[in-house]
Amino acid sequence: MSAPEQATPPNGGVGLWLIGAKGAISSCVVYGLAGLARGWVEPRGVVTEGDAFRNLPLAGFDSIVTGGWDVSSKSMSATVASLAQEGVLDGALVAAAALEAAGHESRVRAGILDGPAVGAADLDPEALRRAALGARERIDVLAQDLRDFREEHGLAHLVVVDVSSTEAYRGDLASHADLATLKNLDHAIDHGHVDHLPASVQYAYATFEAGAAFVEFTPNSGSSSPALREKAGAAGMPHCGNDGKTGETLFKTALAPMFAARALKVHAWQAYNMLGNGDGAVLANPANREGKLRNKDRVLEEILGPHHSHVAIDYVPSLGDWKTAMDFVHFEGFLGTRMSMQITWAGCDSALAAPLVIDLTRLCALAMQRGESGEMAHTSAFFKSPIAGGTHDFHAQHRALLHYVERALND
Amino acid sequence: MSAPEQATPPNGGVGLWLIGAKGAISSCVVYGLAGLARGWVEPRGVVTEGDAFRNLPLAGFDSIVTGGWDVSSKSMSATVASLAQEGVLDGALVAAAALEAAGHESRVRAGILDGPAVGAADLDPEALRRAALGARERIDVLAQDLRDFREEHGLAHLVVVDVSSTEAYRGDLASHADLATLKNLDHAIDHGHVDHLPASVQYAYATFEAGAAFVEFTPNSGSSSPALREKAGAAGMPHCGNDGKTGETLFKTALAPMFAARALKVHAWQAYNMLGNGDGAVLANPANREGKLRNKDRVLEEILGPHHSHVAIDYVPSLGDWKTAMDFVHFEGFLGTRMSMQITWAGCDSALAAPLVIDLTRLCALAMQRGESGEMAHTSAFFKSPIAGGTHDFHAQHRALLHYVERALND
Amino acid sequence: MSAPEQATPPNGGVGLWLIGAKGAISSCVVYGLAGLARGWVEPRGVVTEGDAFRNLPLAGFDSIVTGGWDVSSKSMSATVASLAQEGVLDGALVAAAALEAAGHESRVRAGILDGPAVGAADLDPEALRRAALGARERIDVLAQDLRDFREEHGLAHLVVVDVSSTEAYRGDLASHADLATLKNLDHAIDHGHVDHLPASVQYAYATFEAGAAFVEFTPNSGSSSPALREKAGAAGMPHCGNDGKTGETLFKTALAPMFAARALKVHAWQAYNMLGNGDGAVLANPANREGKLRNKDRVLEEILGPHHSHVAIDYVPSLGDWKTAMDFVHFEGFLGTRMSMQITWAGCDSALAAPLVIDLTRLCALAMQRGESGEMAHTSAFFKSPIAGGTHDFHAQHRALLHYVERALND
Amino acid sequence: MSAPEQATPPNGGVGLWLIGAKGAISSCVVYGLAGLARGWVEPRGVVTEGDAFRNLPLAGFDSIVTGGWDVSSKSMSATVASLAQEGVLDGALVAAAALEAAGHESRVRAGILDGPAVGAADLDPEALRRAALGARERIDVLAQDLRDFREEHGLAHLVVVDVSSTEAYRGDLASHADLATLKNLDHAIDHGHVDHLPASVQYAYATFEAGAAFVEFTPNSGSSSPALREKAGAAGMPHCGNDGKTGETLFKTALAPMFAARALKVHAWQAYNMLGNGDGAVLANPANREGKLRNKDRVLEEILGPHHSHVAIDYVPSLGDWKTAMDFVHFEGFLGTRMSMQITWAGCDSALAAPLVIDLTRLCALAMQRGESGEMAHTSAFFKSPIAGGTHDFHAQHRALLHYVERALND
Repeated sequence: MSAPEQATPPNGGVGLWLIGAKGAISSCVVYGLAGLARGWVEPRGVVTEGDAFRNLPLAGFDSIVTGGWDVSSKSMSATVASLAQEGVLDGALVAAAALEAAGHESRVRAGILDGPAVGAADLDPEALRRAALGARERIDVLAQDLRDFREEHGLAHLVVVDVSSTEAYRGDLASHADLATLKNLDHAIDHGHVDHLPASVQYAYATFEAGAAFVEFTPNSGSSSPALREKAGAAGMPHCGNDGKTGETLFKTALAPMFAARALKVHAWQAYNMLGNGDGAVLANPANREGKLRNKDRVLEEILGPHHSHVAIDYVPSLGDWKTAMDFVHFEGFLGTRMSMQITWAGCDSALAAPLVIDLTRLCALAMQRGESGEMAHTSAFFKSPIAGGTHDFHAQHRALLHYVERALND
Repeated sequence: MSAPEQATPPNGGVGLWLIGAKGAISSCVVYGLAGLARGWVEPRGVVTEGDAFRNLPLAGFDSIVTGGWDVSSKSMSATVASLAQEGVLDGALVAAAALEAAGHESRVRAGILDGPAVGAADLDPEALRRAALGARERIDVLAQDLRDFREEHGLAHLVVVDVSSTEAYRGDLASHADLATLKNLDHAIDHGHVDHLPASVQYAYATFEAGAAFVEFTPNSGSSSPALREKAGAAGMPHCGNDGKTGETLFKTALAPMFAARALKVHAWQAYNMLGNGDGAVLANPANREGKLRNKDRVLEEILGPHHSHVAIDYVPSLGDWKTAMDFVHFEGFLGTRMSMQITWAGCDSALAAPLVIDLTRLCALAMQRGESGEMAHTSAFFKSPIAGGTHDFHAQHRALLHYVERALND
Repeated sequence: MSAPEQATPPNGGVGLWLIGAKGAISSCVVYGLAGLARGWVEPRGVVTEGDAFRNLPLAGFDSIVTGGWDVSSKSMSATVASLAQEGVLDGALVAAAALEAAGHESRVRAGILDGPAVGAADLDPEALRRAALGARERIDVLAQDLRDFREEHGLAHLVVVDVSSTEAYRGDLASHADLATLKNLDHAIDHGHVDHLPASVQYAYATFEAGAAFVEFTPNSGSSSPALREKAGAAGMPHCGNDGKTGETLFKTALAPMFAARALKVHAWQAYNMLGNGDGAVLANPANREGKLRNKDRVLEEILGPHHSHVAIDYVPSLGDWKTAMDFVHFEGFLGTRMSMQITWAGCDSALAAPLVIDLTRLCALAMQRGESGEMAHTSAFFKSPIAGGTHDFHAQHRALLHYVERALND
Repeated sequence: MSAPEQATPPNGGVGLWLIGAKGAISSCVVYGLAGLARGWVEPRGVVTEGDAFRNLPLAGFDSIVTGGWDVSSKSMSATVASLAQEGVLDGALVAAAALEAAGHESRVRAGILDGPAVGAADLDPEALRRAALGARERIDVLAQDLRDFREEHGLAHLVVVDVSSTEAYRGDLASHADLATLKNLDHAIDHGHVDHLPASVQYAYATFEAGAAFVEFTPNSGSSSPALREKAGAAGMPHCGNDGKTGETLFKTALAPMFAARALKVHAWQAYNMLGNGDGAVLANPANREGKLRNKDRVLEEILGPHHSHVAIDYVPSLGDWKTAMDFVHFEGFLGTRMSMQITWAGCDSALAAPLVIDLTRLCALAMQRGESGEMAHTSAFFKSPIAGGTHDFHAQHRALLHYVERALND
């Protein structure tokens, strides 16, 4: 089935290629873009629709075409049905944007596997075939998917965003020899020694190879290793990540600076996360959880100094796409008085992530338009573990974004 | 009883004259300063002890002498006993700083009444006598208290801080004719038509008359009317206020900017405050509560735009000096999804306020040293309703303070 | 439009006549009964489907016919749409039970007004016409509605349940002379002096007149005055109420006995209720809120002894049918140690109430079948303010229900 | 140092022998009993002071003498100081009851070790000496401590209560061959094969040997194995346990029956416990935590049926003796509507446990007086894992206690 003509934006648009293209976040992005383009949906949660961004040459919602990779053979409709039942996607929107959704699904290609066992039940056979290819060949196939997408839709810019499940943690990949330099990595790829490399690394490589920007929205390695940063530089492509700051880490990094500014000594910050969606099921596996916990647990040390800290992520199936976080902060004020603050956050994971994916797509396209390459330091407010480093203080990160916007408007 | 010699700092110190000098906040200030001066107490909650303030010529803790006004004839020891029982003041500190506390209490003079009925039970007879004086005479007596204090202790600078109970709300005093200009006010004072003026206005007038700085730490009118601002300018004195931002409003103005930055639409922010101390008892009276509610309820409008908002302050005697606030935030994200955030804050009111009183004393003394007069716009982070206006965003307010410090260091 | 044949149960069924027949609770009852009858909906929240009730001759879900009174001319579909949007009613159920819903709506007759001002915008003109009738005549018209309903559907038993909005509080009606005896009441009705009587009293009178059972599910006066109790006795009809115990009061009366059993001294129990539906809008009016607060605030005194207690009900429009309650309990344990417990309840008001309405309908029909009349003391677990009095301890109330069931099974 | 005469109750009293006699719970028991006896402390949290117990021949507070075992050589004063700092023990009470405390400490004997590594730093050398004894000899030494205590104070009844730290979990000891029958156990003791037996088993054995009652207030094995139950029977001694129900499990088993009674389907019950005292430090060790988690996690299955359940216990040092539990309950009501309840409990562990230890001492003495032996089924309300089995429903357990009291009063 080819994409219906109606759903195809005019030439010169921006392509958004989603890794995990049939998952919950992608579904919200696809229906959300359709709704935004037609004015059915208000741009709640879309940062780049704010007043400060008004005069920037950002891609219009109707000029963004979506597609992507997925390893599952299941249709997106199962995901959509459960999002509708949980009150995230509105039934009327699902009906009205059926054509756009069908167009998106027709543009999904087989992804590659991260290790043999993941998602074995509904695997797309083509994903298995791609898994059997040599490393260089596999990357070429992925890069060709991107080139085909760009050509078919006459895209001016192409952005790849990883919203797939969290990969198993493999230790600190930044110090892995094969990822230390681009030369080492190219050697490993050409000689086939890449079984230890996460799928996200291969996706990022293929992205830069095809001249596209890359956004790592999960805790995966993606483009954050030295080799991939080098590859992005060589390709002249912008990239950013890792791990979207959507819920518990968001409010934590917004609140913690208050304690620091007021010289209140935080003794303990306990964070209990409960979630029930596919991401939760994957994170119930300790190996997959490890990467996420590392991102969540370290963010406050820089702001608050040493303190007792604990982050738990527990799978509670009945919650579905809803995520409830309960944080407990134990702090000391004047005269040694012990006080406490408790925060409960009940948010919908995909609805929090989707607008940020749209923001990052627009910001990547803007960077490409402006000829910028390398790590996009101004996007740190969007990530738990910004690849360009810097503070985790959300307000300082957001100011950095606004400063970038000011500079861009003055250029 | 005269102040023991040991408790008297050397000449050239800073005087801190507290309105409500025998209350819970003043007790924490007095014992806390003694503890800080001797290194028994860590400077938790003292903002001006932070790294950014290190090289400023701030008053040392051992160079601050305290005294003040109070309308009650009761000894401070009843307050201290209940603070000790509630775990705010440590028994060892109370014993160790007995001399300093006695010194402070010996320097307390009779205050003036705000209306006839308040605190009638334990009234200092001298306060009644002062109430019977003519307006101009009463102000002269107050100003003389300050001059005596300065002279006796050879103080370089003198700061008056109002930490008394919340006065009955009298409508918008800013638009009252007698407070519209200094000329009008002087005329009213000279002709005795001042019964409608809050005590805090008379205190502030006397303060400027005596060449001291004024800090309004309660929701009272204090120095915020046009007439008093004019008076401060004429006296060349710095002043700031109103209403210390210590608990619920603090975290509210630290969190709300996150919702705005992320374009999340806040539909409702409900704030339930429970407190049990003297302040709570006074606030159980709707007339007194009115002023406080006005300050607490309006702060988020500027940051979040129009939304449903409700602030309750309830007296729960068993809580004593502890204040528990429960906030509920109902917000909308992408695709119209309704989410919520709930915050519970269990803090000790006096222990949160006292270090800020010390900070403001130091900042006032610094401003006097630097020859600054008028509204201290850089102190807005300390107040629910900053008299110099500006944003309520706590992080922006704190940055303004840091910018001031940078300028002061570069001068 | 007459009721479609398919939606009419066989003769010998039970009639459920709802006051407020087009509101949110009634909508959930109507669609819920359809879903239960066809096995589409699981009996969550339906107490009488529990094991203990298995062998009782209770009315089957498919043998209950609904109808009722409503003062609004609006169609039920607006209510249903908003319940669907809020995730309470499932879109598929709404579609599948359309016939049953249409049947119910065709059986709705004009209600009577409680005072002139309520709901003036969408008033059914027939309700206005009924308001203009003399008191006796008006009651006759209401009773005739019930007789018509019974006859048309060949009902074995008829139960009237008040789920309308809370009426304005009119002081303690129990001590009102006109409601002190049935004789007084009849005299007032015959001579037209009934303007001061709540609509709920007239509904209850008409109910007993027509030989039906009455359930007061709101805080309204209903059948709880001496005159109405006499009327129920004279008619040989069972009745119960007042004010369904669905949320905050439910968990409060389930938890409080624990503190009592453990000799923990509760100093304060603060209850903050937020709700956004029509009930909330009506309760935003202090006169209407008064009755509800009285029921909620007194329940714990009997269990816990004297303590500081406060109940707030605040209207938060964005919450819709969702009700969030935040309770704070301050208690004292051994050695005077002060501890606290905080409870947050996020429930859907109508979905909590609807199954209890079905339970009470079945229990009334059972009582009628067993020839019982007067106050149904065994239903106290369902009410905030049981008309038969007794403990508010939920567990003791529930045991009383189970004892009744045992006796009924042994008869 | 011998016990001061003043602190010794008259002959015929009840002895309370505490295992972990210098820990936080024991300190609260010792100072609390002194305060109760003199009327300085109100009997908050003491169940047996309730009206229902009024006419029972319970031991007066002034007739209970304490002593016990401890493996630490540290004085109780360190524990007391930290309890005072945390606001649990009042400074005035500590001063006033110094004599009683010294008397108690003079009656503490060396305990025995549970495995080699526990608490190695401050070990009482005598505890090491006892560890080196043969099993039979060690038990004889322990039993002799009890006999000496009884004789010295002329005690009518003696009760041993285990309030020591949680032992490492050793699998299901109930199925261990050596604990399957008393004969097996005696054989093991006589032949020295007892290294695998927890200290609590040896304490319980010695207790029965000496003709005393035994209360297992921790999750330890204590008297719950078949062999020990047989031993209790042979000795004609009453006993009960395990694991005091003081906080999170208490409110959980008080609330859960409400969901069951209302047919609300609980999908998930997540329980996050944070604590900072010595018990918390020991429970930070997974092996020690295992036993406790097993008790806490299973209690709701019986009441609610199968559901997702998770219990975490995390060590947060700054909390000291305070324990904060945050529970999240996800449940389903009518029409499949998902709702939630969240509970936060901030309690002081030792102050919650101590009055129950006093209650159980009185109830054991009463049982001995009444000639009862074996498992005390009527005490199940006090325990997370009652050794006599039965329901975990707190209200049903409490009723069982009240029924026992009624029977005792009627005998």
